[in-house]
Amino acid sequence: MYQRKKSRPVRIGSIQIGAGLPVAVQSMTKVQTTDVDRCLEQIGRLTSAGCRLVRLAVPRRADTQALVQIVRQVQIPIIADVHFSAQRAIEAIEAGSAKVRINPGNMSREDILTVVDAAKANGVAIRLGVNEASIRDLSDDVPPNKRVRLMISRIREYVQLCEDRGFDQLVISAKSSDPIRTIQTNRAIARSFDYPIHIGLTHAGLPEDAAILSAVTLGTLLAEGIGDTIRVSAAGDPVEEVHVAYAILEALGLAERRSPELVVCPTCGRTEIDLLALARKVKASLQQVPGPVRVAVMGCVVNGPGEAADADIAICGGKGKAFLYHKGKKVTVVPEAQLADAVQRMIAQLSRVGDHATAKTKV
Amino acid sequence: MYQRKKSRPVRIGSIQIGAGLPVAVQSMTKVQTTDVDRCLEQIGRLTSAGCRLVRLAVPRRADTQALVQIVRQVQIPIIADVHFSAQRAIEAIEAGSAKVRINPGNMSREDILTVVDAAKANGVAIRLGVNEASIRDLSDDVPPNKRVRLMISRIREYVQLCEDRGFDQLVISAKSSDPIRTIQTNRAIARSFDYPIHIGLTHAGLPEDAAILSAVTLGTLLAEGIGDTIRVSAAGDPVEEVHVAYAILEALGLAERRSPELVVCPTCGRTEIDLLALARKVKASLQQVPGPVRVAVMGCVVNGPGEAADADIAICGGKGKAFLYHKGKKVTVVPEAQLADAVQRMIAQLSRVGDHATAKTKV
Repeated sequence: MYQRKKSRPVRIGSIQIGAGLPVAVQSMTKVQTTDVDRCLEQIGRLTSAGCRLVRLAVPRRADTQALVQIVRQVQIPIIADVHFSAQRAIEAIEAGSAKVRINPGNMSREDILTVVDAAKANGVAIRLGVNEASIRDLSDDVPPNKRVRLMISRIREYVQLCEDRGFDQLVISAKSSDPIRTIQTNRAIARSFDYPIHIGLTHAGLPEDAAILSAVTLGTLLAEGIGDTIRVSAAGDPVEEVHVAYAILEALGLAERRSPELVVCPTCGRTEIDLLALARKVKASLQQVPGPVRVAVMGCVVNGPGEAADADIAICGGKGKAFLYHKGKKVTVVPEAQLADAVQRMIAQLSRVGDHATAKTKV
Repeated sequence: MYQRKKSRPVRIGSIQIGAGLPVAVQSMTKVQTTDVDRCLEQIGRLTSAGCRLVRLAVPRRADTQALVQIVRQVQIPIIADVHFSAQRAIEAIEAGSAKVRINPGNMSREDILTVVDAAKANGVAIRLGVNEASIRDLSDDVPPNKRVRLMISRIREYVQLCEDRGFDQLVISAKSSDPIRTIQTNRAIARSFDYPIHIGLTHAGLPEDAAILSAVTLGTLLAEGIGDTIRVSAAGDPVEEVHVAYAILEALGLAERRSPELVVCPTCGRTEIDLLALARKVKASLQQVPGPVRVAVMGCVVNGPGEAADADIAICGGKGKAFLYHKGKKVTVVPEAQLADAVQRMIAQLSRVGDHATAKTKV
């Protein structure tokens, strides 16, 4: 469907990003970094959910001290999120971070050089992470339509600084809470640099809002081939960020499907069973299925048989009853009252992982 | 950011679509069309939510009879959704529909010509609405990677049929439950035809799944300038479809913001107040604000002041307290326990519609 833009590869501990490698999903812990146990708990759940990189904030000396213990006990590369202080970045590198994120909006050129030298000496990557909110000059406010250019020029300056120092293990990001400016800035980054790009919308909101805004913004960029690692920023449990990130990647065929797929028709005046309630029950039953199966819950014959043919299991509603399909073949007719149970039994039989027939276009 | 692809204009009752006009949000009723009262209730709520076109299914003669009463009592154009039967389409046109959707997957060429003649005589538009699930030939199954071509060729055939009959008030759509094929097919439609395009993902699922899938799919197409009317298909209350549709359009600057905007940082190890709980309370308070205001709920100083400068009201969290901003100016410091109440009072003061300072890039 699209050509992924290939950047040079960058190593982040045990993984590599860029160079057309799979897009890496990342997230952040949301508790004090000094609370090592809760950080480890979040990192464990994030790892299980498919998160491949986890970032932690280290504003205080105590945080980088805690980072030493955290890095030792996790299986995925850890990124330290640093603002204002070169000293914290150095400590985070010494603590074993695989990558350090610094913000050209709040660190001097001299401090950046100090961090670059330490990263180079330790084989650590650096993300130059610009945020519109932290880069705009508050004393002489830059209007929204000038900020894309401001972000790009600041990135250009700092990339040059790193390259002049002989350092190229860079990842670039520019985030805004505005989808349009985020898209515009990342398009410009993709045109201007060949480093891997970290894409995300910065303060995207509560989970229900962040999901839509991130899907529009990251979906648009990914469909243009832009983005090597992604973060969905949403207030709340970080695992939810990972689920949304994978939903976006799976939609565009950029990640193997990890979870059951539930196709449900929106219902209309043709629907003659309580399809919404049935779909909710089917979704609950699917929680127990480990692999990528596809189930279609359809209200009528217009598209029911067609969707059934692409699904492992399908329900095609009639008047007070429904036809059940297994891999496109009609197997039985069930009265509405017994439908949820019958579907649940069929789902329970889908025990084997891989017993599925998704119809994703290979791109 | 992008150039909207301009199609010829098509009139649908009191509105026009295409020709670079604003993207029209549409939805469908989800009760039996013969249940006139409940249809009118749904159409009323849809209209209030900003829905500009409503479609109703008319599978039986009784449905088109009910349509006569419905059309008379609503303020927005009504579209009849017709499958299999030219007779239903004729009845729907006579009932006062402004547009009829027919499906080239289940109507013969002869029947289509009958409908075209009636539409032409009555100034009614036609949507040629292909669904992947209804167009694939089930007796000789077409593999997924051939279906894009199949949908396009079927549309081409039926467009030609209409044009040969001197009819050009056409809207084209091709939907799939697969985002990639939906994107591919619509790109091909935009290249091939100059009729307005109706975009949507067909059986997108339960609302929480449909929102993300639709945002990726429709967002990607809209960001490429493709789409004159959109439908988010989600099982459940149709009003929720309209909210998601507007969230997508607003994100891309394609609709005026209708509702408050809540920027919330995702929180991290720097956050020292219960930001998530606060953001939930702020969102609840914002329900009472009629116009487009922007509120930022931020956890720390990294991006807090920057987001505050773009917001009508902002909260920038510290340790057990927060700074409150009004239009970028710090106005007070409030202990965490009193924060929700203080913000609620500030929101209540935003009584005037238009007292806002959103920072959307004009495109």
